[in-house]
Amino acid sequence: MNFQTVHVALGPRSYDVRIGAGILAELGHFVASLKRVRQAVVIGDRTVFELYGQRVLDSLRKADLAASAVTFPAGEEHKTMATLSDLFDGLFSAQPAVDRDTVIVALGGGVAGDMAGLLAALALRGLRWIQCPTSLLADVDASVGGKTAVDHPAGKNLIGAFHQPNGVLIDVNTLKTLPEIERQSGLAECIKHAAIRDDSLLEFIETRAKEIADGQPDTLIELVTRNVAIKAKIVSADEKESGERAHLNFGHTAGHGIEASLGYGELTHGQAVALGMVVACRIAEEKNLVAPAWRHRLELAMRSVGLATRREGLDTDAVWNIMQHDKKNRDGKVRFVLPTAPGEVGIFDDITETQVRHALAHLAE
Amino acid sequence: MNFQTVHVALGPRSYDVRIGAGILAELGHFVASLKRVRQAVVIGDRTVFELYGQRVLDSLRKADLAASAVTFPAGEEHKTMATLSDLFDGLFSAQPAVDRDTVIVALGGGVAGDMAGLLAALALRGLRWIQCPTSLLADVDASVGGKTAVDHPAGKNLIGAFHQPNGVLIDVNTLKTLPEIERQSGLAECIKHAAIRDDSLLEFIETRAKEIADGQPDTLIELVTRNVAIKAKIVSADEKESGERAHLNFGHTAGHGIEASLGYGELTHGQAVALGMVVACRIAEEKNLVAPAWRHRLELAMRSVGLATRREGLDTDAVWNIMQHDKKNRDGKVRFVLPTAPGEVGIFDDITETQVRHALAHLAE
Repeated sequence: MNFQTVHVALGPRSYDVRIGAGILAELGHFVASLKRVRQAVVIGDRTVFELYGQRVLDSLRKADLAASAVTFPAGEEHKTMATLSDLFDGLFSAQPAVDRDTVIVALGGGVAGDMAGLLAALALRGLRWIQCPTSLLADVDASVGGKTAVDHPAGKNLIGAFHQPNGVLIDVNTLKTLPEIERQSGLAECIKHAAIRDDSLLEFIETRAKEIADGQPDTLIELVTRNVAIKAKIVSADEKESGERAHLNFGHTAGHGIEASLGYGELTHGQAVALGMVVACRIAEEKNLVAPAWRHRLELAMRSVGLATRREGLDTDAVWNIMQHDKKNRDGKVRFVLPTAPGEVGIFDDITETQVRHALAHLAE
Repeated sequence: MNFQTVHVALGPRSYDVRIGAGILAELGHFVASLKRVRQAVVIGDRTVFELYGQRVLDSLRKADLAASAVTFPAGEEHKTMATLSDLFDGLFSAQPAVDRDTVIVALGGGVAGDMAGLLAALALRGLRWIQCPTSLLADVDASVGGKTAVDHPAGKNLIGAFHQPNGVLIDVNTLKTLPEIERQSGLAECIKHAAIRDDSLLEFIETRAKEIADGQPDTLIELVTRNVAIKAKIVSADEKESGERAHLNFGHTAGHGIEASLGYGELTHGQAVALGMVVACRIAEEKNLVAPAWRHRLELAMRSVGLATRREGLDTDAVWNIMQHDKKNRDGKVRFVLPTAPGEVGIFDDITETQVRHALAHLAE
C-alpha cells in the first residue's frame, strides 16, 4: 500500500503519522504493534461510526484484540463535559474491564479526536490512544500535537489536556464522504499553514483544487503530508505552546470569538479561522507590519476554495467580550498572532481594543 | 512562626510543603511569590470554607491579589464529574476572567484537593495550584504526589490526572475542628507509611496518641512532617507510579473494593484502607511472606487509634468484582502490595482469586 509517514519527534512521546488510501484496514496491526495491548475501545461519532465502525472493529479483532465501541452524537455542540461524562460511563462498562493496557481509538473528525483524547488522558490517569481522523481538518490539524479538550459556554477548548497519541492513521479515502463545507474547513487550516510557514502551499491548493474536491488519493496524500509535516515541525520544537507553537493560533483568537459569538455550529471551525485570519491581517496592516496585498492574496486563496472573507452583521461587541476570555491571554491582554511577511507571523501582546474593533467592523461590513 | 519544610524533588515540577500552626495566614505571600500571578480562585468544600474561607481570601487580598471562591458540597459522594462540571461553571464566571496566570487554591480535605487539582489540570489545559489541606488524611497523603481525580460508579479515582501543585501549606491548627473519625482516617495512612517504610512510626503514633487527639501543635507538626517526608521520598523516586510509588497502595486494592462495595460515604477512606491492610497481611501470611505477628502489631496500632480491623457481613463477592476494575491492574490480574517484613512491602501479581476470597472471608467473620 502506498503511504507516507511523518514522524512527530517529542522524545519519549514521539509517534508516527501514517497517511495512505485505504490504510484504515491496517489499524488492527498498528494497534497490536504497541506493547502489552489486549484490548481497544473505539470512541467515535455516530455518523462516522456508521460508515467505518465495522471496518475498524473487524481490523482490530483480526489482530486478536478485544474490541468494543462507545459512540456519541456528531457535532461540535456535543463537545461538552456532559458528553465526556457519558463516554466514561460507556468506557467503564466495556467487557473485559478497561485496564492500563487498554488502548483508546479515536474515530472521526476533530471533535472525536478532542474528546477521545481527553478521555484517554483522564481514564485511569492516562491510557494510550491512536487517532484515526476522518475529516480534512482533523487530518491536517488535530492529528498532530496532542491537544485535547471540550468546550465550555465561556469559550472553546477551555477544559482539556496535552496528551500525545501513540500513533495516527490517516485514511484519505474517508474524505470521499466528507461534505463540501467540511473540506473547505480543512482547507482553511491548510491556508493557515501556508500563511505561517510556506506560502508556496497556496499555489498547490489553488492549482490542485479540483483533484482535492474530487478526492484524488495521491493529491490528498500529498496535501495532508505537507500540512502534517509543517505542524509536526512546529510541535516538535515547542510541545506545550510556550513559544513558536503559538503561531498555529494565527486566525484563531478572533476566529474563536466569532465562532462562539454566533453559537457553536453556525460556522465551521475553518470558516471561523478564515474570518479570523482576515481580522489578523487587518490589524497587521494598521500596525504597518504587512501591506494589504498579503491579505488580498490570502483572501483570494480562501475564496478559491469557497471560504467567505466577510461576515455581515457580526456582533462585534460579543466577539470582543469572548476574546477577552481566550486562554492564550496573559495579564488581561489579548494576544494576537499577526502576519509579518508572506509565510511568516509573529506574536503580539500590544494590540489595543480599538485596533481589534476596527478590524472586526471591516469584517462585518 | 515555627514551621517545617519538606521539599518534594521532581525536577521542574519540584515544590515545597510547609507545615506550621497558623500558617494559613501566610497564604497570600506564598501565592504572590509565584511568577506572574495576579489572581487566585479558591476551590473549597462548603463546610471548610465556612470555617477558613474568609481568612484565606483576606490573606490573598492583603497580598494584592484578586481573589474569589467557588465552593461545592462537602463529601466524597460529590467527588464526581457532575460537581467538577459545576466548578468549571463557577471558575469561568470569575471576574476578572481566568487566564493562564490565574492560580487555583485548593482548600479542604482530600476531596477538595482531588477536585481542585483536576480542575487546575484541565482549566486552559493546565493552571498552577496551591494546596491547603485541612484534614490529617489530606495532610499526610494527598498533599504530596500530584494525583488528582474524581470517582466513577465503576470505581474510585478512575478519572484523573497527574498535576503537581506549585506549593502546599499545611496549617495544623485546622485539625482542631476535625471530627474524631476523620483523625482516625488520617492515622490509618500514617500507619500505612509505617508499614511500608518506617515501623518506628507506630510507636510514635501510639505514645503520642493523646497529644495528637488534643491537637497539640508541635506533635502534629512532627507527625505530619515525618509522614510527608516518607511520601515525598517515594514520589520523588517515581513520580508516575511505574515502580516503588505503588508501595503507597498498600491496603488500597482491597480497601477501594471494600469502600465501593459499601457505597462511598459508609466508611472513611482511612477506615477502608485499614481493613485493606488487614486483608493484604492475611494474603501475605498465606503466601508465607510474613508471620501473623506483623499483622497483629499493625492491628494493635489501628485499634489504639480506634480503627476497626474486622467488618462483619461484608459482601465479599461485590468487593472481588470491584477489585477487578482496579486501575492498577494489568493483563486482567489483580495487583497487590503485600508486607514482606516489618516496615517493608513488595508488589505481587500472582495472587489468586481464592487467596483474596479467603482473606476477605476472615475480615467478614
